[in-house]
Amino acid sequence: MTAIVLDGKTMAQEIENELLERIGILATLGTVPCLAVVIAGNDPASHVYVRNKEAACSRLGVMSIRIDLPESVSQKELMDVVSELNNDEKIHGILVQSPLPKGLDEFEVTESISPEKDVDGFHPSNLGRLVMGLDGGFLPCTPAGIMEIIERSGTVTSGKSSVVLGRSRIVGMPLSLMLAMKGVDSTVTVVHSKSVEPREICKAADILVSAVGVPGIVKADWIKEGATVIDVGINRVLDNSKKSGSRIIGDVDEGAWGVAGRMTPVPGGVGPMTIAMLMKNTVISAERKS
Amino acid sequence: MTAIVLDGKTMAQEIENELLERIGILATLGTVPCLAVVIAGNDPASHVYVRNKEAACSRLGVMSIRIDLPESVSQKELMDVVSELNNDEKIHGILVQSPLPKGLDEFEVTESISPEKDVDGFHPSNLGRLVMGLDGGFLPCTPAGIMEIIERSGTVTSGKSSVVLGRSRIVGMPLSLMLAMKGVDSTVTVVHSKSVEPREICKAADILVSAVGVPGIVKADWIKEGATVIDVGINRVLDNSKKSGSRIIGDVDEGAWGVAGRMTPVPGGVGPMTIAMLMKNTVISAERKS
Repeated sequence: MTAIVLDGKTMAQEIENELLERIGILATLGTVPCLAVVIAGNDPASHVYVRNKEAACSRLGVMSIRIDLPESVSQKELMDVVSELNNDEKIHGILVQSPLPKGLDEFEVTESISPEKDVDGFHPSNLGRLVMGLDGGFLPCTPAGIMEIIERSGTVTSGKSSVVLGRSRIVGMPLSLMLAMKGVDSTVTVVHSKSVEPREICKAADILVSAVGVPGIVKADWIKEGATVIDVGINRVLDNSKKSGSRIIGDVDEGAWGVAGRMTPVPGGVGPMTIAMLMKNTVISAERKS
Repeated sequence: MTAIVLDGKTMAQEIENELLERIGILATLGTVPCLAVVIAGNDPASHVYVRNKEAACSRLGVMSIRIDLPESVSQKELMDVVSELNNDEKIHGILVQSPLPKGLDEFEVTESISPEKDVDGFHPSNLGRLVMGLDGGFLPCTPAGIMEIIERSGTVTSGKSSVVLGRSRIVGMPLSLMLAMKGVDSTVTVVHSKSVEPREICKAADILVSAVGVPGIVKADWIKEGATVIDVGINRVLDNSKKSGSRIIGDVDEGAWGVAGRMTPVPGGVGPMTIAMLMKNTVISAERKS
């Protein structure tokens, strides 16, 4: 068998179409959703990510404001910028691109963003709502995108066994909370670098999500026949057959396509969904203020 | 075999002794830790809990202030009280006893407590820090007490399988985050009412924590030989042999003592640790302000 492709690109397009409708309604109320992106320093990958986010805003008619700060920006200068954006009523979402230049305290910056504008969903207050199983906060974009893939693909979650590989604050931990929430109701296990026999645990999963960033770590024999497999890894590996000399692969080995029931490709799986969720959070924030 | 008793009463006493030393040091700096307890209405169980907390304060030389509000208190009046306590520099910890009278919004009240005085550890900002794996917040008292029992009993956690029965915001969800944290490193599974074959999952656990509030639901054949079993249940059941006509039992059936390696009794297990953790959080808060 060959797994059905969970096409994140197409699903992200569906979400964008839904958002276009909502943005149209907002326009009749005189509101244009507006996302402010703050980027400090010259990290080339960060600049690519920010450009992708700006492109999504432009496709949807979301206003985007970009604030470029030098590598040498101080903690106070950065926090002053955030504070101004917090107080600016026309701005609905604030995103400070990670990683920050060395020496800056990322947690303090995140915490200084107003939770109602925290469209990245990393403010402790928004993560805390997740622990409490409460609606009304913003969900972090990558795990929220994974949940959308699971729902839109018709994967049954209630009573099923979900295994999350990786315990990061950005993906693994918030995702494990979402998969266990009332209404989703899966039985969640978090596996990490200290776990014994990860293969055996993964092999029992109806839904397997890998977010560890190790190319090809999840082999075909880690996967239950027919499982839904979500690959969050974005790993660059050498490939002399490519002009660039490298290509992007996931955490899940190619062989898994022969065992899984449904699986996300890399690229074109979770990646496009993350940006779609950022747009969705920005639109939600604008709707709340309208 | 008969399981070793994980004696929460004795462990709580040890913690109180450690806190007495720290409170002595605070005294030399001119600081007396102070806990404010707000109670609204006449729920008899709540009044028992509050008296137990006041007794712990009194044993340790922690100042306690108690604010009794009528059943009819409004949301605004209650929040005004919290706001005053937030601004009162001599108060290090604020606790609003749950449950609140009908019609009041408990989440809004919790969120209005200053996170630096949230010694109950339920402010979303403190729960959010837990998702992020960050120190510096307050840990919710019951899960923190469970972690102390696990540590003080010398139970090995790294690489071991932990199963948490129950997904409440007060115990199950925060505890699952703590058991998976770096340094604790267990492989955590959360089991709940929608989980299929809970017995099989529990039986694979090296560490089993039950927090569902169903008397005796965890039978001997749910437990792995030699496992560490923590019983969070406090369930009142009829017992005509008692003068009161009832007694308190846990979630774990008596038969489990023959299979487990170590186990907490009910009462006298997790209960005393919860109050000890509240005292610890109050002392930590006072230390931070000194």
